[in-house]
Amino acid sequence: MDDVVVVYKERPELKAPVLIEGLPGVGNVGKLAAEHLADQLKATKFLEIFSKYFPPQVLVGDSGVVKLVSNEMSYVKRPDSEHDLVILVGDYQGLTPDGQYELSDRVLKVAKELGVSMAFTLGGYGLGKLVEKPRVLGAVTDEDLVEEMKGHGVTFSKGEPGSGIVGASGLLLGLGKVYGMRSVCLMGETSGYFVDPKAAQAVLEVLSEVLDFKLDFSDLEDKAEQIDALTSKLKETEPQPEPKKEDLGYIG
Amino acid sequence: MDDVVVVYKERPELKAPVLIEGLPGVGNVGKLAAEHLADQLKATKFLEIFSKYFPPQVLVGDSGVVKLVSNEMSYVKRPDSEHDLVILVGDYQGLTPDGQYELSDRVLKVAKELGVSMAFTLGGYGLGKLVEKPRVLGAVTDEDLVEEMKGHGVTFSKGEPGSGIVGASGLLLGLGKVYGMRSVCLMGETSGYFVDPKAAQAVLEVLSEVLDFKLDFSDLEDKAEQIDALTSKLKETEPQPEPKKEDLGYIG
Amino acid sequence: MDDVVVVYKERPELKAPVLIEGLPGVGNVGKLAAEHLADQLKATKFLEIFSKYFPPQVLVGDSGVVKLVSNEMSYVKRPDSEHDLVILVGDYQGLTPDGQYELSDRVLKVAKELGVSMAFTLGGYGLGKLVEKPRVLGAVTDEDLVEEMKGHGVTFSKGEPGSGIVGASGLLLGLGKVYGMRSVCLMGETSGYFVDPKAAQAVLEVLSEVLDFKLDFSDLEDKAEQIDALTSKLKETEPQPEPKKEDLGYIG
Amino acid sequence: MDDVVVVYKERPELKAPVLIEGLPGVGNVGKLAAEHLADQLKATKFLEIFSKYFPPQVLVGDSGVVKLVSNEMSYVKRPDSEHDLVILVGDYQGLTPDGQYELSDRVLKVAKELGVSMAFTLGGYGLGKLVEKPRVLGAVTDEDLVEEMKGHGVTFSKGEPGSGIVGASGLLLGLGKVYGMRSVCLMGETSGYFVDPKAAQAVLEVLSEVLDFKLDFSDLEDKAEQIDALTSKLKETEPQPEPKKEDLGYIG
Repeated sequence: MDDVVVVYKERPELKAPVLIEGLPGVGNVGKLAAEHLADQLKATKFLEIFSKYFPPQVLVGDSGVVKLVSNEMSYVKRPDSEHDLVILVGDYQGLTPDGQYELSDRVLKVAKELGVSMAFTLGGYGLGKLVEKPRVLGAVTDEDLVEEMKGHGVTFSKGEPGSGIVGASGLLLGLGKVYGMRSVCLMGETSGYFVDPKAAQAVLEVLSEVLDFKLDFSDLEDKAEQIDALTSKLKETEPQPEPKKEDLGYIG
Repeated sequence: MDDVVVVYKERPELKAPVLIEGLPGVGNVGKLAAEHLADQLKATKFLEIFSKYFPPQVLVGDSGVVKLVSNEMSYVKRPDSEHDLVILVGDYQGLTPDGQYELSDRVLKVAKELGVSMAFTLGGYGLGKLVEKPRVLGAVTDEDLVEEMKGHGVTFSKGEPGSGIVGASGLLLGLGKVYGMRSVCLMGETSGYFVDPKAAQAVLEVLSEVLDFKLDFSDLEDKAEQIDALTSKLKETEPQPEPKKEDLGYIG
Repeated sequence: MDDVVVVYKERPELKAPVLIEGLPGVGNVGKLAAEHLADQLKATKFLEIFSKYFPPQVLVGDSGVVKLVSNEMSYVKRPDSEHDLVILVGDYQGLTPDGQYELSDRVLKVAKELGVSMAFTLGGYGLGKLVEKPRVLGAVTDEDLVEEMKGHGVTFSKGEPGSGIVGASGLLLGLGKVYGMRSVCLMGETSGYFVDPKAAQAVLEVLSEVLDFKLDFSDLEDKAEQIDALTSKLKETEPQPEPKKEDLGYIG
Repeated sequence: MDDVVVVYKERPELKAPVLIEGLPGVGNVGKLAAEHLADQLKATKFLEIFSKYFPPQVLVGDSGVVKLVSNEMSYVKRPDSEHDLVILVGDYQGLTPDGQYELSDRVLKVAKELGVSMAFTLGGYGLGKLVEKPRVLGAVTDEDLVEEMKGHGVTFSKGEPGSGIVGASGLLLGLGKVYGMRSVCLMGETSGYFVDPKAAQAVLEVLSEVLDFKLDFSDLEDKAEQIDALTSKLKETEPQPEPKKEDLGYIG
């Protein structure tokens, strides 16, 4: 079989689309954000990616029907904007380093075919300690994007993340740069200990300003409250974990 | 060498055959069931699969003659039924995720050549605790199969298995669905601590009703009694192990 | 680069050659035996095998000159025999299962080109306890070879080795059988705790009778005495290790 | 995507260039040395190597602009010498054995295209204990290079490094020898516990004599003093670690 299998359900005509990626990672920040975005903007799924670089696994839906683990793309047409959107979400990232490269490479090739002009990758920046008000850190492919993103409240902090960005959120920028794709990685600060809807919201607040859309955050806020309730209980009963050095820079 | 090597001993003409898979996994439920089935129905071996995704190992028979580890298919012709059977058994599953994909992909291609119309995969559902009377859980590729299987006593339980189905039993459904093959996974509940002939029997009782054949279970019942004797001794001497969360959803 | 690189120094014309393999493994029995054989019969090296399945490593000779890790073949012309010999020795076996398959596959293809009619693979059979007088166990590709080998003192013991034969010594038989090559695996019993020249000698004594050559064993006997001196000291000071179940069947 | 991607920024015309490699490894000796060399000789970067054998990672520069992890080559034109220089540095070595082979193979092919006549690989020789005055050990592809290197103060010591040279520094020699490239590996003794600028300097002192260039070592000396301050504090507070056998021969 092919290493990466792309199945189109539809071949949409899109207007200078912007790619937004959010896959599982630290605090599941990227995945939470991208799924919330696709949900709120009523995105239409048009493409599935299967791969032998994913786990050999099916998920079983509530009805008992299986679904092979995958990544998938959906689109949002925006008549009032210069840019339509393409959103990439999924169950897993590639299991191996070479799988990560192959998958990101393929996503970039698909993006090019769709006419994607710019990409945003969403992730978490693991701090190894609880975060009250998460900042959104940025990394970019092109220097001029730094100032532009700063204008939207993105923090660029020398030495952060110190060990770089690992996984799809980084690779899409890195490989994209080699292929000439302009991109921004937005990383919401998170402890990394829990699924983190608050960090996802912080990332989406920046993105909604940059790309000019409106989102209702009540779902994410509800989830965040549940997590907060949980963690405040934990804080009462357990000593707070020490930040581990090796956790600090991993980004999903 | 080719990644997967298929050696035909015979090219049988089969009537709308149904594929039944049982490879090693949790409680060896699938393997026990499929081997018992092939034995009872006097299936004829017609194909061997060798692969560099299996361990680099030969097994040594009682006479001293070696056999390279493999998967193999046998067929059962059924003049009184609309469907002949093809049974897939083997020494191992693929060792790596990509090996699992390649092997399942190849099995599906062979099945298509044979004209297979439907597949059943057999496995165990590990509960992490001893099971008195194992249920048979189901997962399917197509919604209409849910009701049909319920009619044969298969349980479809929301959230079970929570982490999906890993390995050949899941992948044959998942990839099969992509390729348009209708399939059912039947999972016998098992502790996962021992080889489990009782769970294998439960799975085969369902399958024999669905596919309309008769089996003698005395072999499996004998094995189950031996295991029961062993486990009841263990229960007397040791505290019963706590179910581990991570064991709950793995399916072979 | 090619996965496996074969470099011929010479293309010898050989008379119905017999292949003898001895690579690193349990007790280094096979490697010791094959190297002793090549040394005693003044074999001529004619071929080197390099591969990305070996470690990325060079060895440094006494003079300071490096040598990329490899397997190599040498030949022995025997005017008074019907069969010339080809001996395969090396620094490593393949690091991964698929590497093991690729390397054994390539060795068999080279053997076929050389006109090899029969192969013997040499290894150790790890018992997990000290062995006074090692037996030589056998495994074969074809039933008629069992009686023939028994006539030379080889033991065929039902259930031994219980977990089969792992690595090149097994794979050359298993893949060879698929390709129609007759072969015998000779396994010298060894504790598996030390390099074992005594087991290597036992294996070579059988092989010299089967293939009709004479060897001087004084080198191996000297090494065995050194090991014996070491192990008898250990026996005085330490309780003898319990045989571990998982050690019993691994063969190099 | 290709397993290894080579991107030329410029195709320089070079005069019988000598290749010098220094990648991360034990004590980061090779990387420190090669980077210092490139810096001091104002080398011009002309080529980048990306690969799926590297980690799926981008590094983030001080300005916030990302860089996909890579190896890179720079050149130094030397009008007064017979040999221009090509320097290979990088963020990582290949993650897997086969990746190491593929990357070294590719470097050698690029070197051949550039007309490289000779290669020097730089690394550390881990002793597992603190080293006062590091020797520089050598290993070569061709016997006549031993005497030549001895003349420049390189030590060739029988049995050192006992377990050979692992990684790019070894493989470029080993594969290079198969392809007919003359090469020398220079290994600075190091504890292996810290980044070791002193060992890097020792290696560069030899190399500057062999290839006839002058270097200012004040940067490395500053770094060495910082490390020395650190380690002497450690010596006061902690018992010195025992040398571990398995550390002794690993070379980066």
